Amino acid sequence: MGVSADQDRTLPRPYVDDAMCPQRLVLEHVTSRWGVLVLIALLERSYRFSELRRAIGVVTEKMLAQTLQTLERDGFVHRDAKPVIPPRVDYSLTALGEEAARQVWELARWTERRLPAVEAARAEYDARRAPLD
Amino acid sequence: MGVSADQDRTLPRPYVDDAMCPQRLVLEHVTSRWGVLVLIALLERSYRFSELRRAIGVVTEKMLAQTLQTLERDGFVHRDAKPVIPPRVDYSLTALGEEAARQVWELARWTERRLPAVEAARAEYDARRAPLD
Repeated sequence: MGVSADQDRTLPRPYVDDAMCPQRLVLEHVTSRWGVLVLIALLERSYRFSELRRAIGVVTEKMLAQTLQTLERDGFVHRDAKPVIPPRVDYSLTALGEEAARQVWELARWTERRLPAVEAARAEYDARRAPLD
Repeated sequence: MGVSADQDRTLPRPYVDDAMCPQRLVLEHVTSRWGVLVLIALLERSYRFSELRRAIGVVTEKMLAQTLQTLERDGFVHRDAKPVIPPRVDYSLTALGEEAARQVWELARWTERRLPAVEAARAEYDARRAPLD
């Protein structure tokens, strides 16, 4: 009653705190381990499944297929099955997917750039908490 | 040998594909369910622990404490324990944390804004795969 209304007012926007919140799910898809890599790879060009798997490296076939399907269902990835022999399937970004990929790319680039600062902070934190003897 | 060198060349930058990759860990901290909410809340102002817990809503005390500790260790959050009675601890963003929070806020805002497009894509995807009878 009053409580949840009060919480809504004090809660910062955007509101993403509930596991069932659909935005949270989108955020999880685009920032998942393989989601990030697929989006960033496809930002360069379209890929065939096997090419993408090689480019990403350690991902299993099953995990890559699941990731692509999730991103296709969200409208980020376009799957183009060409009627040729042998079968050929190309994956590319939709316009919406390109927006997602650019955001995620920025964030990933930022973490790369700032990693030394984070590592210095961790070392300092751990030193402060180390036994003094 | 040759294989991993080839993979490195074809892999898009930034390189975040390994579970052990330290950037991946930073990305996970700032995009975690509570990490996102803590960063966005602290972008507005500093908070005391209990205030922050109320603002975020459903988070448990333990999860919030863990999230704050992780973000403090990464150098994103500053913990200020004031020598007063009763004890008072304020949490705020460091300069590095503000950078992280702005990125995450943009991404969260983007998912909020584009959610209708994602939901439309999902409905269309599911309809294409529905049985035809």
